[in-house]
Amino acid sequence: MATAANSVPHPTLISVSIDVASVVFALNLRRSAPQISRRHVNFLLYQNNEILTHELRKGIHNRWHPDIPPMVTVKPGETFKIECVDSDDIKNVDLTKIHYLTGPIAVEGAEPGDCLVVDILDIKPFDKMPWGYTGIFELENGGGLFAREFNSRAAKAIWDINGIYATSRHIPGVRFAGVTHPGLIGTAPSAELLATWNKREGELIAAHQNAVPPVAFPPEPIGAYVGQDLDPKVFEKIAKEGARTVPGREHGGNCDIKNLSRGSRCYFPVFVKGANLSVGDLHFSQGDGEMSFCGAIEMAGIITFSTSIIKGGVEKFALKQPIFLPSPIDPLYSQKLVFEGLGVDIHGDGKQYNMDASVAYKQAALNAIAYLMKIGYTREQSYLLLSAAPVESHVGAIVDSPNACVTLAIPTGIFDHDILPNPDGFPKKDFGQCAIRSDGVV
Amino acid sequence: MATAANSVPHPTLISVSIDVASVVFALNLRRSAPQISRRHVNFLLYQNNEILTHELRKGIHNRWHPDIPPMVTVKPGETFKIECVDSDDIKNVDLTKIHYLTGPIAVEGAEPGDCLVVDILDIKPFDKMPWGYTGIFELENGGGLFAREFNSRAAKAIWDINGIYATSRHIPGVRFAGVTHPGLIGTAPSAELLATWNKREGELIAAHQNAVPPVAFPPEPIGAYVGQDLDPKVFEKIAKEGARTVPGREHGGNCDIKNLSRGSRCYFPVFVKGANLSVGDLHFSQGDGEMSFCGAIEMAGIITFSTSIIKGGVEKFALKQPIFLPSPIDPLYSQKLVFEGLGVDIHGDGKQYNMDASVAYKQAALNAIAYLMKIGYTREQSYLLLSAAPVESHVGAIVDSPNACVTLAIPTGIFDHDILPNPDGFPKKDFGQCAIRSDGVV
Amino acid sequence: MATAANSVPHPTLISVSIDVASVVFALNLRRSAPQISRRHVNFLLYQNNEILTHELRKGIHNRWHPDIPPMVTVKPGETFKIECVDSDDIKNVDLTKIHYLTGPIAVEGAEPGDCLVVDILDIKPFDKMPWGYTGIFELENGGGLFAREFNSRAAKAIWDINGIYATSRHIPGVRFAGVTHPGLIGTAPSAELLATWNKREGELIAAHQNAVPPVAFPPEPIGAYVGQDLDPKVFEKIAKEGARTVPGREHGGNCDIKNLSRGSRCYFPVFVKGANLSVGDLHFSQGDGEMSFCGAIEMAGIITFSTSIIKGGVEKFALKQPIFLPSPIDPLYSQKLVFEGLGVDIHGDGKQYNMDASVAYKQAALNAIAYLMKIGYTREQSYLLLSAAPVESHVGAIVDSPNACVTLAIPTGIFDHDILPNPDGFPKKDFGQCAIRSDGVV
Amino acid sequence: MATAANSVPHPTLISVSIDVASVVFALNLRRSAPQISRRHVNFLLYQNNEILTHELRKGIHNRWHPDIPPMVTVKPGETFKIECVDSDDIKNVDLTKIHYLTGPIAVEGAEPGDCLVVDILDIKPFDKMPWGYTGIFELENGGGLFAREFNSRAAKAIWDINGIYATSRHIPGVRFAGVTHPGLIGTAPSAELLATWNKREGELIAAHQNAVPPVAFPPEPIGAYVGQDLDPKVFEKIAKEGARTVPGREHGGNCDIKNLSRGSRCYFPVFVKGANLSVGDLHFSQGDGEMSFCGAIEMAGIITFSTSIIKGGVEKFALKQPIFLPSPIDPLYSQKLVFEGLGVDIHGDGKQYNMDASVAYKQAALNAIAYLMKIGYTREQSYLLLSAAPVESHVGAIVDSPNACVTLAIPTGIFDHDILPNPDGFPKKDFGQCAIRSDGVV
Repeated sequence: MATAANSVPHPTLISVSIDVASVVFALNLRRSAPQISRRHVNFLLYQNNEILTHELRKGIHNRWHPDIPPMVTVKPGETFKIECVDSDDIKNVDLTKIHYLTGPIAVEGAEPGDCLVVDILDIKPFDKMPWGYTGIFELENGGGLFAREFNSRAAKAIWDINGIYATSRHIPGVRFAGVTHPGLIGTAPSAELLATWNKREGELIAAHQNAVPPVAFPPEPIGAYVGQDLDPKVFEKIAKEGARTVPGREHGGNCDIKNLSRGSRCYFPVFVKGANLSVGDLHFSQGDGEMSFCGAIEMAGIITFSTSIIKGGVEKFALKQPIFLPSPIDPLYSQKLVFEGLGVDIHGDGKQYNMDASVAYKQAALNAIAYLMKIGYTREQSYLLLSAAPVESHVGAIVDSPNACVTLAIPTGIFDHDILPNPDGFPKKDFGQCAIRSDGVV
Repeated sequence: MATAANSVPHPTLISVSIDVASVVFALNLRRSAPQISRRHVNFLLYQNNEILTHELRKGIHNRWHPDIPPMVTVKPGETFKIECVDSDDIKNVDLTKIHYLTGPIAVEGAEPGDCLVVDILDIKPFDKMPWGYTGIFELENGGGLFAREFNSRAAKAIWDINGIYATSRHIPGVRFAGVTHPGLIGTAPSAELLATWNKREGELIAAHQNAVPPVAFPPEPIGAYVGQDLDPKVFEKIAKEGARTVPGREHGGNCDIKNLSRGSRCYFPVFVKGANLSVGDLHFSQGDGEMSFCGAIEMAGIITFSTSIIKGGVEKFALKQPIFLPSPIDPLYSQKLVFEGLGVDIHGDGKQYNMDASVAYKQAALNAIAYLMKIGYTREQSYLLLSAAPVESHVGAIVDSPNACVTLAIPTGIFDHDILPNPDGFPKKDFGQCAIRSDGVV
Repeated sequence: MATAANSVPHPTLISVSIDVASVVFALNLRRSAPQISRRHVNFLLYQNNEILTHELRKGIHNRWHPDIPPMVTVKPGETFKIECVDSDDIKNVDLTKIHYLTGPIAVEGAEPGDCLVVDILDIKPFDKMPWGYTGIFELENGGGLFAREFNSRAAKAIWDINGIYATSRHIPGVRFAGVTHPGLIGTAPSAELLATWNKREGELIAAHQNAVPPVAFPPEPIGAYVGQDLDPKVFEKIAKEGARTVPGREHGGNCDIKNLSRGSRCYFPVFVKGANLSVGDLHFSQGDGEMSFCGAIEMAGIITFSTSIIKGGVEKFALKQPIFLPSPIDPLYSQKLVFEGLGVDIHGDGKQYNMDASVAYKQAALNAIAYLMKIGYTREQSYLLLSAAPVESHVGAIVDSPNACVTLAIPTGIFDHDILPNPDGFPKKDFGQCAIRSDGVV
Repeated sequence: MATAANSVPHPTLISVSIDVASVVFALNLRRSAPQISRRHVNFLLYQNNEILTHELRKGIHNRWHPDIPPMVTVKPGETFKIECVDSDDIKNVDLTKIHYLTGPIAVEGAEPGDCLVVDILDIKPFDKMPWGYTGIFELENGGGLFAREFNSRAAKAIWDINGIYATSRHIPGVRFAGVTHPGLIGTAPSAELLATWNKREGELIAAHQNAVPPVAFPPEPIGAYVGQDLDPKVFEKIAKEGARTVPGREHGGNCDIKNLSRGSRCYFPVFVKGANLSVGDLHFSQGDGEMSFCGAIEMAGIITFSTSIIKGGVEKFALKQPIFLPSPIDPLYSQKLVFEGLGVDIHGDGKQYNMDASVAYKQAALNAIAYLMKIGYTREQSYLLLSAAPVESHVGAIVDSPNACVTLAIPTGIFDHDILPNPDGFPKKDFGQCAIRSDGVV
């Protein structure tokens, strides 16, 4: 029976504020004064960061750097909770600021070369925020897989989270159970590893200057913050060198793997003393690939962890990147409609690629979008749905030159209507449209 | 009760000979006389083809071409069987000859623009051949995903098929249920579609001359055959123009999708009158990607089909490529160990790629191979195992510039020993080696 | 982004107090004075009930009766939450009081003959109570499947709930994901249906007087309460006639079906205006059968619902009892070790029963317990584990006279050690013991 | 590549004749002369048996007895095949003859007290018999779960086996993948165990004389045969004492467990030297419970085995009955419509039973049948369908006195139409009728 003595929750070690209005206001001011010098920006930035830290951003950082000190330290075996904010605006997303990570969390006894075992025990939206959203960014700001093909304008779908299910007023006829997961989780890089990242990504950027959207994002002091009161010199170093959070890397990071979900056990390589785990970008659900970039159902919420350490695990398991055991509670939608895609741009100019699984994924996705449009969904609805629903994409074959073959599987059980091919084709149906820009451009 | 009257099997519409010794002998003779002129070869080829057709290759063809007449014609709704031979030699594979397809099978009433529905009702090895094999080709002849990285020499694993399971004397400690499927199935292309293929692949070849292994395979009269007595002019046209069978294309073809397995229902676009379905390259099992190229468990056997037609299905379903419903009997290995891979060559020179899922797949595979080697398997055993076992590869994320993230999931239940990470690492174990070249080079 | 405006939780329509100490004290006083007359007890009861109602039991009732007025009324389509207390003491369980149901909840528009569709959207323990328990009752008080065979003494296992997982200090070596569900959920009976229940159960009791444990539980004013201020006459009627909550019946009730879990959609027959749904006895997990009676992981927590109505559904679907669609998130433990049981008491006197699936279930369970004891668990640990873990029991065959065959399947993936049969048998292991009576008797 | 040398099938150790017409004729003659004395019958029987043995029944026996010598002896580790005939006539089933078991198969080295590990590697219908059937027996001859409730007259459904799927002209709108399994498999009993069976079943029969259908079947020399040339004295002993094959018992036997399917690994207790395994009653598919008695899809076919021995396994694993690991290829129909049943005869006289899971199973089944009849199937079609399709029945709860709760889950994916509850109810549909008696009585 419940008594006061046994009514003790697992501790919440880092809490966050989810009322972000004032923060956004402050940051937007800074963005509207681009004429001020870089050095001065850095100074303002620091001041700003100080303010934000003390008010709203305590415990949140948005760069990867070994010098960001841990916010908390836990012992192996403890169960604890961490709060996370959700992501940013759609139309005016400021990529210098994303992603908002909570941490770092140091684990007692973890040392470089160890393997940090992280149990993702649970992930929930905040009780007062039973909703999330999926967005298409503008071509010129954020992009997405089909930013150029669709000449993307901002659009989104709001999802209502009703217990284990999501539904959207913007994409009617669909309901699915969430595979809740952190889009972004990783250990802190060592200085050496960070230098490697900056070097190799810098070379790629140099080779693709003026690309829209850009091919990668270099360190950027503007927008950087660390969620703690630091010596200004330390902060400036972090802001100048810190790796951006957009891509996944050897430490984990923004891998956006939907099956790294609540209930999974993950094995991370440790690069710094304490491991310094950070987490953010919680997703209520996501399709394999997260097509539209802001394609998962983004939500604010609480993640529950416990950790342990395997000494020397990097060597023991040849651990160049994280490995994991998925959760036993992956939703079970056994019937799927599967689309194939090849390394040929059959939806465009017909160009033949050379064993390109990325192109094959895109073609499979375009095949699926074309099919959903026959059913009556708009292109934007289809794009958002495939990004957010528990869609599976397999690499079918990657050796049959010159065509990689990638599949995209839509679970039929998420629809409240029959989407299987039938002799009569589909009757015309109107499912409305997702949320679009106030000027009506899609 | 069984009586003579009700003891009637489903008809086997195309039978094949699986005693290929004499054929190989005949073809090898031809290969050893390269000095003879092309024109003469074509003539010999035709003669040879004639002989083979009448003796051993009746019903088998190895090029895609609209002018190959159907071997048989079926009515929609009929259940029928088709026999298929297995694939070729490992060390001396002759890529001018693969793949050995059975067909074409015309379906009454199918016309261009229709959708051909194909139920893959069953696939079995021949009773007298309860075995299959998985191979690594030579770097210079056939290649494979890691042909260059591993400087591949020919190797293979023989698999014993015991009912639903495969085991291999060459990869001890592993047993798994097969996801039996045709590596290769497709409808015949129209003349226009064939021309498109030849044009776009020709351009790719032109842009990568002297690549080893080659990036693609142009039409090649040498080695072509059609399994029927044709007017020499018709045969010559087919041999000259016929698309090679290595890649999958808009009609299906060599997609090597493991989940297109027995029990699945497939929807093919129809490009020629009768649809002219062909099938071959049966696999007892395959991992997503079929890594080593000859990576599935290749087997000879019997496939059972039934078909139906959806008139105008190409338009109704926006059918640019096949779509399908997988079988309800996909083996269920719920626990998986998942490896991540990025679009960075972290196993090689550290090069940063730009959203390259093919590279990410390769890195995930190399991470998995490195792990299996820690357990005690050799590099070749690991490579073959990941190619042949029911390994799943998902496209995790394909929008987090510059890194695509691809995962590779190994079902732990296929091992008779524990492969999960554990605090003590793995004790040294010796699993022997797979079958290698007689000169011992791996 | 989160703002004050969109930070609105789903409403909690009925809240409960989970600090039950004072209640138990008050009730125990009453039990210790059995000499007082029945009539007087009824009077005291009413007084007591008044007090409890106003202090701690608002919204909770423990009898089924059409005259218990709804606590709240909801509209079809609303999402709302209901809080539930957990169950009672183990050793001194007072069966006159269980189960503590929250409700009734009326649904606008529901009328007798309709089908009430209930979506069980989520079930969670209270944040401050991340634990539950599984108990064995005393033979003489509460019983359980093997009360007589084991001459049961009180024992229990405390389970720690860490996110989706449960572990127990009392049953080491085991961890499993919960299939969280309400043990007890149902609509209110009509007066006619209630009379039917009381009549048929009364006849059974009459035929088995003095059975230990009793075969059924008649209406019992002692211990009855309704959680509301009612006219004393109304309350007395309810207390006198109200059906006890132990068995499941045509309205649902205490069916203890583990797959009626969060994410499932249930269809209840409606017997009274408003349907008057009540719910309680939340389980974090349970094995098929709930063997030890208090065998599930009992917990206090919050359930999230939404409802709709199908007019005339009883007739449309021949709805004599609830039907349901299970959740898509049933945990996936694919490998199972299955025990068979027959309708013969092979663990006792060898008696042959006549097509008795209950006996077959018991024999399968005893076979499983004997196996777990070979591994090193005690009989009580095994009994509790099979009651609480996601064990599956199928009716194999029920027509092969005289033996019903029932199976019990233990998922092997819930153990952190290998429980499969192996040539060497099991090494002796000591897993301690569950929590037992302070006098040490098990 | 295939060559003559490597084209070697797994050996078929016992072959059977499936042309049973003459046998049935011979046996029916015997049944039509009941006036002849028992002793004389035994003599005729022996003669008959001699004839049958030499002609058609070699390798087949229909009684369990330790003195039936093995037909073949295998070594542990060998893969081998065994052929099995299908079951008997529906209307005039002769229960003295069923079931037709193939065997016994001795395993070298197996001794009493050992555990015989049997891998069921595959089960297939004969190529020339791609069909099976499901029957309802007459009330007075064979019975079935609802023989009395429905006053059953003979009926059946013929199933066409198309690869992994079954469909029936007699139950349109349904197609499902088979969970192919032996209804009957077991080791031979020792003399002691056999005596135990005969004693306990004899007592049950004595207590229920004149029951229709009978509660159990005593040893019966009429109809007994052993498939081998035996000393007449030995045969007479077997015929007189041999246990009938209808029920499952401690050795396995007719357990009709659908998940003991191809791909499963079974552990049998060994009671006699060599273990003497026998197998028969192959089912292409069956629902949990096998409701109509001849309820599975009965077929003739071939089963592939391999075996091994665990010395002293009975003691090591407390093995009073077989245990097993199900196959990884159980068909995956994730969505199910679940019916509940209680231990109250709510479809009949309303009688309250005391924790009776058999009654609860029956009520769940009747609820399901009533639902299917709303959709448009006849009672007989529904009865046959639930018997034959991969329906799951779980023991929900077995401790909530007085009501056991049993569920019956119908996979919705086996229908080609939507069977879920919907606001409009079901439109009237006519699915015809199953095959009924020539006099039209159902």
